[in-house]
Amino acid sequence: MTTIDRLTGVVPPLVTPLNDDYSVDENSLTRLVDHLLSAGVDGLFVLGSTGEAALLPPAERGRAVAAAVAAADGRVPVLVGAIDTATLRVIEHVRQAEELGADGVVVTAPFYTRTHPAEIDRHFRDVKAATSLPVFAYDIPVSTGTKLSAGLLTNLGRDGVIAGVKDSSGDDAGIRALVLAAHDANLAGFSVLTGSELTVDSAFGFGVDGNVPGLGNVDPAGYVRLYRATAEGRWEDARAEQERLIRLFGLTDAADVDRMGRASSALGAFKAALHLLGVIDNPVTAPPYLPLSASDTEFVKGKLVEAGLL
Amino acid sequence: MTTIDRLTGVVPPLVTPLNDDYSVDENSLTRLVDHLLSAGVDGLFVLGSTGEAALLPPAERGRAVAAAVAAADGRVPVLVGAIDTATLRVIEHVRQAEELGADGVVVTAPFYTRTHPAEIDRHFRDVKAATSLPVFAYDIPVSTGTKLSAGLLTNLGRDGVIAGVKDSSGDDAGIRALVLAAHDANLAGFSVLTGSELTVDSAFGFGVDGNVPGLGNVDPAGYVRLYRATAEGRWEDARAEQERLIRLFGLTDAADVDRMGRASSALGAFKAALHLLGVIDNPVTAPPYLPLSASDTEFVKGKLVEAGLL
Amino acid sequence: MTTIDRLTGVVPPLVTPLNDDYSVDENSLTRLVDHLLSAGVDGLFVLGSTGEAALLPPAERGRAVAAAVAAADGRVPVLVGAIDTATLRVIEHVRQAEELGADGVVVTAPFYTRTHPAEIDRHFRDVKAATSLPVFAYDIPVSTGTKLSAGLLTNLGRDGVIAGVKDSSGDDAGIRALVLAAHDANLAGFSVLTGSELTVDSAFGFGVDGNVPGLGNVDPAGYVRLYRATAEGRWEDARAEQERLIRLFGLTDAADVDRMGRASSALGAFKAALHLLGVIDNPVTAPPYLPLSASDTEFVKGKLVEAGLL
Amino acid sequence: MTTIDRLTGVVPPLVTPLNDDYSVDENSLTRLVDHLLSAGVDGLFVLGSTGEAALLPPAERGRAVAAAVAAADGRVPVLVGAIDTATLRVIEHVRQAEELGADGVVVTAPFYTRTHPAEIDRHFRDVKAATSLPVFAYDIPVSTGTKLSAGLLTNLGRDGVIAGVKDSSGDDAGIRALVLAAHDANLAGFSVLTGSELTVDSAFGFGVDGNVPGLGNVDPAGYVRLYRATAEGRWEDARAEQERLIRLFGLTDAADVDRMGRASSALGAFKAALHLLGVIDNPVTAPPYLPLSASDTEFVKGKLVEAGLL
Repeated sequence: MTTIDRLTGVVPPLVTPLNDDYSVDENSLTRLVDHLLSAGVDGLFVLGSTGEAALLPPAERGRAVAAAVAAADGRVPVLVGAIDTATLRVIEHVRQAEELGADGVVVTAPFYTRTHPAEIDRHFRDVKAATSLPVFAYDIPVSTGTKLSAGLLTNLGRDGVIAGVKDSSGDDAGIRALVLAAHDANLAGFSVLTGSELTVDSAFGFGVDGNVPGLGNVDPAGYVRLYRATAEGRWEDARAEQERLIRLFGLTDAADVDRMGRASSALGAFKAALHLLGVIDNPVTAPPYLPLSASDTEFVKGKLVEAGLL
Repeated sequence: MTTIDRLTGVVPPLVTPLNDDYSVDENSLTRLVDHLLSAGVDGLFVLGSTGEAALLPPAERGRAVAAAVAAADGRVPVLVGAIDTATLRVIEHVRQAEELGADGVVVTAPFYTRTHPAEIDRHFRDVKAATSLPVFAYDIPVSTGTKLSAGLLTNLGRDGVIAGVKDSSGDDAGIRALVLAAHDANLAGFSVLTGSELTVDSAFGFGVDGNVPGLGNVDPAGYVRLYRATAEGRWEDARAEQERLIRLFGLTDAADVDRMGRASSALGAFKAALHLLGVIDNPVTAPPYLPLSASDTEFVKGKLVEAGLL
Repeated sequence: MTTIDRLTGVVPPLVTPLNDDYSVDENSLTRLVDHLLSAGVDGLFVLGSTGEAALLPPAERGRAVAAAVAAADGRVPVLVGAIDTATLRVIEHVRQAEELGADGVVVTAPFYTRTHPAEIDRHFRDVKAATSLPVFAYDIPVSTGTKLSAGLLTNLGRDGVIAGVKDSSGDDAGIRALVLAAHDANLAGFSVLTGSELTVDSAFGFGVDGNVPGLGNVDPAGYVRLYRATAEGRWEDARAEQERLIRLFGLTDAADVDRMGRASSALGAFKAALHLLGVIDNPVTAPPYLPLSASDTEFVKGKLVEAGLL
Repeated sequence: MTTIDRLTGVVPPLVTPLNDDYSVDENSLTRLVDHLLSAGVDGLFVLGSTGEAALLPPAERGRAVAAAVAAADGRVPVLVGAIDTATLRVIEHVRQAEELGADGVVVTAPFYTRTHPAEIDRHFRDVKAATSLPVFAYDIPVSTGTKLSAGLLTNLGRDGVIAGVKDSSGDDAGIRALVLAAHDANLAGFSVLTGSELTVDSAFGFGVDGNVPGLGNVDPAGYVRLYRATAEGRWEDARAEQERLIRLFGLTDAADVDRMGRASSALGAFKAALHLLGVIDNPVTAPPYLPLSASDTEFVKGKLVEAGLL
């Protein structure tokens, strides 16, 4: 286990490679960890939205965590998504993650039931009371229906409940407000991580600590270069790298929106790309996601070639 | 186990009585079942939204199902909510329910991840393929972010995938379209159940088969009288009963919306009322719901007195 | 001018017949008024959403009002939609309507700018202060982004600001709450009108005063029969008439949703139907609505034949 | 009149100073124009959302345009918002602006009625066909309910229908996609302007041409410095200036959200600040906006002092 002082840099949210029966393919997951670590990433986030956390049963979630922890072998911290509808269920996932050697957990607002800020506040406090691991708040309103405010998050940080935030709201002005609020509140060791794939240079420019890009599964070296360019003030290089990655992100449009949802298409494309790159054995995604067609996969291949990855 | 030919009448969605440690209070649940059956309800729906299905861990869900099945003892069918984010996890709940003696399961669209109609269709088909129990679709867009269309539901009914629909959309024109579509498609044994507490006479008037009212926990006899009045064409009686129940429903406004969410208030009020009526031992709700205050509980008591229940 | 004591019965929201240059076709509008009055409707609502109020410039709005008032000739009250973004602009429309002989005006919440309930309250009070005509609140959240609460509306009714509500929210439980709240507040002469086309028998069953059905342009006699059946307690007749009208409403699906919006399709279908019935000369709608194709119009014709109107 | 080749730099959306009777205060507007021009702004945008375009009647809109054009006196281009519900009404505003000497018009998607992309496309084409002025698309989904896609906008640019986009979506990844799409489509003279007040350095960093900040009314010199710093690659200076402006933006929180809406508070604060700075005579806003209290105004004053403006 790795102690997290302040999480920084590139922390990709790993896809979870599966077998045809939707069990976790641990060999592929191990290869994926190596693919990411050899590119120089700073941490791993297992069982985020990209990791199909919301689609996998508890046992498979456990297998994914165990395999990732073993593969990481203490080289970088491993965060685990404890994504579930409400407090008691989240706590079960948190305990599982802790037992399996995770270095931190990532927790969203409750969902399915509509909640009030006072309930969200209670939720994070109850979860933290059940674990010694650092808890990161995961702001993903498109999935939960709730936006976590900078005020609520800063309070939780000040009280030692959360160690940081992974922001997938797409609201850069909001993330920036959080960065400033955390700074003003003097929250040492509090990390603000953007889930963006497309405005990462901007986000490092205005002060986020880290980046959790789904596309980082496919091109971790690109995101590492982008991060380092920003850290060194090479903004033109960062912009060029970001623009290349924006174009690569076009692979998520593989499937026609009339045929399947955006998540099926994007996640299917990430897995298809990793399969084409020889990292994972099987591009299958869990139900109800639908599979890409052969021509969708050709489209993904074209994007990899364009981006110089194949 | 009871065979369901065509579910009709009043099928309350049971609250799940809890102990202070959020374990299921089986004695209270047994008393609740008796309270409902002695009022003449036609079925029981365990682990719906009102049953805190989204808040309870799998083990407690199992205990609630087992207790309800035992208490019902074959007198009426017991439906069980298999509410979870996606297909594989729903199937685990379905199997648990089947093993524990449920007579049917109730399944929502996937949530957390955004889905396409083709994926929702696949979801219900995959779930049905995993069970011999009748599957009811649960349309609750406020929780899932997705409205199930009459076309999709009728197709699933025609193919034998679903045995009916529990509609909590609040969209009476939509429910009515579904009633007509099911009739036109000649779906024998297909039940349309409204989750409404407030327009039940209307819904029976336009042809729904049954009603699943959360407030039916508190006043099951009222909903049974309402149903029977509609069945016998006594529309003025039905309207009067409905209006009395609308006023009783005012108990869900117990807590100030500035202090907690609507769900905390409504569910807290149902449990407070059942506690005041002596049916359950403890009005506690699962986190992150917040508890009613003493004056909130007094408000609930006032509504029970007004409605002639205390 | 007609004094409105308490508006009741069927009050169709008239389409506004146009010429090819999008000027108002007054002859067709006069024929439409006759078509509706000879079917026995109880009032006319000019320049509602169905009347393309939001699409027509002020001068054409004036011409539509003048023509409708002249054609009605005092036989029934003429309500006029003063639909615009905010208070000052609404007041200009209200004054125009008053000068042109309207019997009442219909006013939505402000839109484009997001508003607070206190601002909506001010809006209705400022509008009422500018006119001696009765003001009806128009609740249409799909267009304005705001739901008017029963509490706000009842307060405005109690203070003599509004004379009633036209509810196009589609939320029958909400309309019913308003009916009860208005009753409890003893609001004499306060009318609750449902904009529904599909649950009208239900709405009269639970106590609304009137109905404003867009489809009433096409089949006013049907809605008059439906209203009378409910007034006489012939609920089976009402249901049969309503179900016939639900099927006729299928004409709004004339155009493929991939090709144009739902409003283009529905409004285009109403006008196409009136053109096929010989009531109006030209089925054209204002931009940006798109025109129905010839085969869309054939579809409308088929629905008219099915419903016995052609 | 000024010819617009390619709009760049800082183009504040002017508040519209009003008298107590809500008529335009032309003297104050003239002073506001001088305040902005002496700070070095590159253009003026009259009658945007900040200019209360949606709240003012046509005659007052005309007076605001005439006064702004006269005050600008050809020194910088004057854009005018032709914001209204649908095509015919927008065209009336466009013609008024053209007659009064505007250099360009700014047009949103239709609103109130829900529209399809094909209808939005038609809308912009019909508007452009009615004017020789350059037309800028205004993407403001919070007000219109519609997001304009990069594809639609790029097509309109390629066909010469629009000369650029003012993006107030808050979606920086989307703006960036538009910047890249416009670049790939080789749209010479096509301007992408961000409406952001809070991520302006980022936006210039990823390639927008200009900025339309409401807060630029209050501190135009700050936004000019920010723009110039980005143009000269002084990113640290830009960030510091932006952070100062983010703190100044806190003045928009002047009023309690329980008492009035966010728009009342923000716009009231802009006007209060300009009044405190001696630029405009009267901080009044049009109905239904509510006025700030004396203590709200003190709050605004405090922010001006903090920012070094008072």
